[in-house]
Amino acid sequence: MNKPKKVVLAYSGGLDTSIILKWLQTEYGCEVVTFTADLGQGEELEPARAKAELLGVKPQNIFIRDVREEFVRDFVFPMFRANAVYEGLYLLGTAIARPLISKHLVEIARETGADAVAHGATGKGNDQVRFELSAYALEPDIKVIAPWREWDLTSRTRLLEFAEANQIPIAKDKRGEAPFSVDANLLHTSSEGKVLEDPSQEAPDYVCQRTVAPEDAPDTPEMVEIGFERGDAVAVNGERLSPAMLLTKLNELGAKHGVGRLDLVEGRYVGMKSRGVYETPGGTILLAAHRGIESITLDRGAAHLKDELMPRYAELIYFGYWFSPEREMLQAAIDRSQEHVSGTVRVKLYKGAASVVARWSDHSLYSEAHVTFEEDAGAYDQQDAAGFIKLNALRLRLLANRDRRLRG
Amino acid sequence: MNKPKKVVLAYSGGLDTSIILKWLQTEYGCEVVTFTADLGQGEELEPARAKAELLGVKPQNIFIRDVREEFVRDFVFPMFRANAVYEGLYLLGTAIARPLISKHLVEIARETGADAVAHGATGKGNDQVRFELSAYALEPDIKVIAPWREWDLTSRTRLLEFAEANQIPIAKDKRGEAPFSVDANLLHTSSEGKVLEDPSQEAPDYVCQRTVAPEDAPDTPEMVEIGFERGDAVAVNGERLSPAMLLTKLNELGAKHGVGRLDLVEGRYVGMKSRGVYETPGGTILLAAHRGIESITLDRGAAHLKDELMPRYAELIYFGYWFSPEREMLQAAIDRSQEHVSGTVRVKLYKGAASVVARWSDHSLYSEAHVTFEEDAGAYDQQDAAGFIKLNALRLRLLANRDRRLRG
Amino acid sequence: MNKPKKVVLAYSGGLDTSIILKWLQTEYGCEVVTFTADLGQGEELEPARAKAELLGVKPQNIFIRDVREEFVRDFVFPMFRANAVYEGLYLLGTAIARPLISKHLVEIARETGADAVAHGATGKGNDQVRFELSAYALEPDIKVIAPWREWDLTSRTRLLEFAEANQIPIAKDKRGEAPFSVDANLLHTSSEGKVLEDPSQEAPDYVCQRTVAPEDAPDTPEMVEIGFERGDAVAVNGERLSPAMLLTKLNELGAKHGVGRLDLVEGRYVGMKSRGVYETPGGTILLAAHRGIESITLDRGAAHLKDELMPRYAELIYFGYWFSPEREMLQAAIDRSQEHVSGTVRVKLYKGAASVVARWSDHSLYSEAHVTFEEDAGAYDQQDAAGFIKLNALRLRLLANRDRRLRG
Amino acid sequence: MNKPKKVVLAYSGGLDTSIILKWLQTEYGCEVVTFTADLGQGEELEPARAKAELLGVKPQNIFIRDVREEFVRDFVFPMFRANAVYEGLYLLGTAIARPLISKHLVEIARETGADAVAHGATGKGNDQVRFELSAYALEPDIKVIAPWREWDLTSRTRLLEFAEANQIPIAKDKRGEAPFSVDANLLHTSSEGKVLEDPSQEAPDYVCQRTVAPEDAPDTPEMVEIGFERGDAVAVNGERLSPAMLLTKLNELGAKHGVGRLDLVEGRYVGMKSRGVYETPGGTILLAAHRGIESITLDRGAAHLKDELMPRYAELIYFGYWFSPEREMLQAAIDRSQEHVSGTVRVKLYKGAASVVARWSDHSLYSEAHVTFEEDAGAYDQQDAAGFIKLNALRLRLLANRDRRLRG
Repeated sequence: MNKPKKVVLAYSGGLDTSIILKWLQTEYGCEVVTFTADLGQGEELEPARAKAELLGVKPQNIFIRDVREEFVRDFVFPMFRANAVYEGLYLLGTAIARPLISKHLVEIARETGADAVAHGATGKGNDQVRFELSAYALEPDIKVIAPWREWDLTSRTRLLEFAEANQIPIAKDKRGEAPFSVDANLLHTSSEGKVLEDPSQEAPDYVCQRTVAPEDAPDTPEMVEIGFERGDAVAVNGERLSPAMLLTKLNELGAKHGVGRLDLVEGRYVGMKSRGVYETPGGTILLAAHRGIESITLDRGAAHLKDELMPRYAELIYFGYWFSPEREMLQAAIDRSQEHVSGTVRVKLYKGAASVVARWSDHSLYSEAHVTFEEDAGAYDQQDAAGFIKLNALRLRLLANRDRRLRG
Repeated sequence: MNKPKKVVLAYSGGLDTSIILKWLQTEYGCEVVTFTADLGQGEELEPARAKAELLGVKPQNIFIRDVREEFVRDFVFPMFRANAVYEGLYLLGTAIARPLISKHLVEIARETGADAVAHGATGKGNDQVRFELSAYALEPDIKVIAPWREWDLTSRTRLLEFAEANQIPIAKDKRGEAPFSVDANLLHTSSEGKVLEDPSQEAPDYVCQRTVAPEDAPDTPEMVEIGFERGDAVAVNGERLSPAMLLTKLNELGAKHGVGRLDLVEGRYVGMKSRGVYETPGGTILLAAHRGIESITLDRGAAHLKDELMPRYAELIYFGYWFSPEREMLQAAIDRSQEHVSGTVRVKLYKGAASVVARWSDHSLYSEAHVTFEEDAGAYDQQDAAGFIKLNALRLRLLANRDRRLRG
Repeated sequence: MNKPKKVVLAYSGGLDTSIILKWLQTEYGCEVVTFTADLGQGEELEPARAKAELLGVKPQNIFIRDVREEFVRDFVFPMFRANAVYEGLYLLGTAIARPLISKHLVEIARETGADAVAHGATGKGNDQVRFELSAYALEPDIKVIAPWREWDLTSRTRLLEFAEANQIPIAKDKRGEAPFSVDANLLHTSSEGKVLEDPSQEAPDYVCQRTVAPEDAPDTPEMVEIGFERGDAVAVNGERLSPAMLLTKLNELGAKHGVGRLDLVEGRYVGMKSRGVYETPGGTILLAAHRGIESITLDRGAAHLKDELMPRYAELIYFGYWFSPEREMLQAAIDRSQEHVSGTVRVKLYKGAASVVARWSDHSLYSEAHVTFEEDAGAYDQQDAAGFIKLNALRLRLLANRDRRLRG
Repeated sequence: MNKPKKVVLAYSGGLDTSIILKWLQTEYGCEVVTFTADLGQGEELEPARAKAELLGVKPQNIFIRDVREEFVRDFVFPMFRANAVYEGLYLLGTAIARPLISKHLVEIARETGADAVAHGATGKGNDQVRFELSAYALEPDIKVIAPWREWDLTSRTRLLEFAEANQIPIAKDKRGEAPFSVDANLLHTSSEGKVLEDPSQEAPDYVCQRTVAPEDAPDTPEMVEIGFERGDAVAVNGERLSPAMLLTKLNELGAKHGVGRLDLVEGRYVGMKSRGVYETPGGTILLAAHRGIESITLDRGAAHLKDELMPRYAELIYFGYWFSPEREMLQAAIDRSQEHVSGTVRVKLYKGAASVVARWSDHSLYSEAHVTFEEDAGAYDQQDAAGFIKLNALRLRLLANRDRRLRG
């Protein structure tokens, strides 16, 4: 790879990406462009501007964008149409944010004439894969720099030495090493590493910082009604909200009731297992509610096909293939199913749980006339069931006859 | 269909199946054999014997069997190896019991020389299909009688008239109509119909009778440790238990903590949607724990394949195809994966939730050496990730190159 | 079911559907509307008009439509985008025509105010299911009459008696019973029944009437070049053709070279196996060519996903679920993949075989620069493969380490 | 990676692997053990022994094994039970041989105390992946050396110079560069590269050397009857044969009739597309015959599940995951289905085609009694079809009702 001349860096303003910034300048002697995104991680972004300037980034090379609405509308919501969970549990909060960041990195590279992008993900994790597959899919000849895979700053001590030698300010609480690593955005907060590395040990209380513990949640349940249109949530308790505002609202409700905590071991794309603690308060409510509205508006054939496709779809997102033809094919199938997924779901929040208790819709396929135990006025002829069963049984009977024949 | 001469009836001892018993005798003039199973539904069985005798069944034609161990060992546990849930939520508690009952009906038919079996499921539900597909798969030429599809006792009034006309004792609380219909066994209790028929209305409090409400559960969490061997639970809190005793134990714990309540709308095999309220206290704990032990002992490739196969597997059981070649094929694949699914999982029970908080195993694939944020002593070469990503990206880059070429 | 007042009959003009026409008039006393379609079966349609009039159908109730272009454009081509084959072999020639016929039956019912439709399929086959599922999906309250399931004309003799008694003209060659049953349309000709009922006996030579025997085909191969745009064939040997004309052209070529004969046993939806002999000359060429153009224009990820979805898609069409949400979902996924499936394929036709020998496209993803055995000027870094393999192997190595550890 | 001390090399005796042998000795200064396998590639093996000795390999380090029976019995036959084809066409002839070779390399490494294995596959292809994933899966800490990814002998000239400098004999016909690259074993011969690199150009006649051209095949068809037991072929024309002898026999028949030629473009695991020409004479017959015997002995449910699983199974083998839990799971499912896949199939061979024309079995599920157009003596009640269709249509009718309701 030829040396890059101009690099767009995914820059948080924190110590690690500041070190990367400086390292890119010194190691490659290249111009650095910074991209700082508001993904709803709950941090102010303007300090990142000041810090980038301090580190010598030209003002016109500093890009700060609020991408919260784009994130929820174009990434989170399409994914929730699929009821996507990875390995049965994980709501993909980190995985779904990475392609969005790469999309902006590539766009800014085009705008600024940069020939490379850089990110702060390590060589052991999934995020490097997600960043890079997305970048290559959008800009096939872009250079990608992953300093953690390249440099020799392989210990905390050396990192701090490098920071000091390069006048990078070090916040006092960053002197010591964090007891675990955190990633946050509007959908979730994940924690992993260090104190969490032994999966036989319970996660310490202090790990979860976004939601209250179920034990500390209110003793009284709270009901929330979520309105859907064509598969996407559009209203909370009757109030229409933009995608990001809606998820923010659900996050508040979920956090208050201790909803969405998860402690699991997952299989990384790079081959090892890792333990993570996730908090997805609003997303957990949304998933339950979406399944709830689908339960009355989605045909069984469509619903079962969706369920069969989902694990693959979730795997693709987890592995980093958001911008791939096969993810887009699955999305087309899923979106095709959502035309009538409209209506309202009531969810009960209580001590960590989000439980659907009622659902209604103009688009409902539920037919009380058919299902009733009462007289159904001819809606359904029970005699039909006899033929239905007889023909479905035919091949099983032919099998049983063969077995009997062969046994003699 | 020629008239049956001797019918084995799935007989609960309750009013409805007593009416069926008498109706079979009068309508077909045939000898009736009764089969009453202890599936853990929590009712005494001996009254069924007395009642059958009262209704004229010969003592040698009365079969009462405790099938709890068989139920859990041969049906529930194999199903839980698959992490089976129907439509994302339902743990299949009713569905999994039906093939077992049919298996005994057919065996008793062979023993007694009966040429038919009969069941008390209606013509609108899934259970008729499950009973009958199972029966035909095991005994292809058996006759199956489903009185609810045949007779003219289509109202409560006519049923009671028939009962009275035939000296069938009617318990006082059966005079009025039950506000909903219940099915119970060791795995779950389901409620449906009547007061539950409007899915926009919350289920009344009195519907759930097996578990306490989460609001009424203890304010202090309780930890339970579940030991697994080759995919099956074998111990609770260090005590080895038989399959049925183990599930009984988990049911007690779950019921106490309000675990396993579910209110949903599902797609029946016969084509309409129906609303059900399920209580699966022990099963819900077991499912979480099984996923927990798999998370450290099952390879990612195996785990993802299982997740992809699961919806089909669950559908087969829900639809009644337990005794089918395709269910057996999927079972073979699933069972093949469970060889090393051994170890222990700690689950926290609190206010309706069962959450895995720790897991350990001699068979663990989790490698702290690989995953650690610390120096890993060469277990993993981060440079490998660069090539891994580069080749996984190649096809995406070729795609992007094409798009660029065609755009000119 | 209340008696129908006005019935739209799928009417071929042949003896069997003429008997049905008359039977509907006499049995139900209802007005009959006839629909006769030119699906490319190779029969003149005007005689059907005369015959319908002769049997008392009002001129305004006689509908004759050339649906060949609609058939190929809206049914055959979408299906071929999926490379659909049932049970590995059958190209679904009969199955794909049924929903089209039902669509017209329903439309004509709306136009004429009819309350029922009728078809001439028997109660043992798949076609009844396909006709009726399609009709119900498009017009949920339509009545469907399937005379073969209802009447007592269960032998050839009784049918002929009924025909004679009702002045239905009987062609001389219809006096005797046909040695097998035939269905034909632009895509294929199928033969089944009678002389074909024993699958251990080779099909007689006279069964195949649409294609020459490979033995009688020209001794010299013929090349044909098929042009594709967005997944559909649009040109043959450089000449742009409409869908139906294109398939007609390929049929001529295929028939001449004995392409597309198939003798198989298939699993019917109603549960039994049946033996069929199929001739699909043009379709067989088209399938090979479509796979050929996909091989250079479709990404591997998309192609493999298509291959995995295909059996389900084919099953849905075979079973009669063309008008179902799940078929439409799969179609959306498949169509999404075809945007760049454009280019040209050369196929060699010889003695029954259609073999792709060359393919090229402006949309090609094939990169000689990458694949070459020669110096590739840096397009591909072979070192990347080492990391790619190392990380893909990691989980397998962890598995092997566990096994070794446990063996001690 | 520490320097290997002793390396087991997959050694053909040809020029390329001889250069590798010498390069390993000189580059790593390590002891080389050679493994030469008779996979049915049609070459004598003893010259490899002489050549290895000439190059300084100790006699006790030369391993020559006839693995044909193992190859067919343990690799080819299990794969054919699945009807595996990659991307719709490729019968995986090269892919299925690689894990077998790695298995022996690893075994010999254990026997001889070697710490590494080496192979002669390039860094662009699939074979390196297959060799190495298999080796790592069987021996997680083995070193793998892939000289083509490491050395600087990147042109034909440099290779020959190295050979000359190291006294490696160069056959006269190896002086010039081969016009394409060949791999052969009992299942197939593949050709790729050089003259085949442009997929828009037809393959030259001289590429296929194992089968006659269809044009040169006999003008008279030949029938062959293949007997199966539990999914595996066991007899040809009534003569029981061992697996390898049976495949040899079918190869002769296929080669004579020009069966099994294939020209395609495939998607490699490493990301690019490549063009190959394959000759799989016996395998092509076997695949057709296996589908033929399954068509009468395998239940529809099992058959369809197999068809859905097959693309994934084939992908796993193509990608090199033979020794993986997910391949073993799928194999368990497939094998479970083959218990009754026994009987005989007659295949017609003619001018490149292998067509099933008849099939029979004691295990047949085909029921003439059910399928017959004639009077079926009550085997099948056509009335059942009405109910079957009605209930399968119910959900579609509910959908159509909703659409109508919403349209107003």
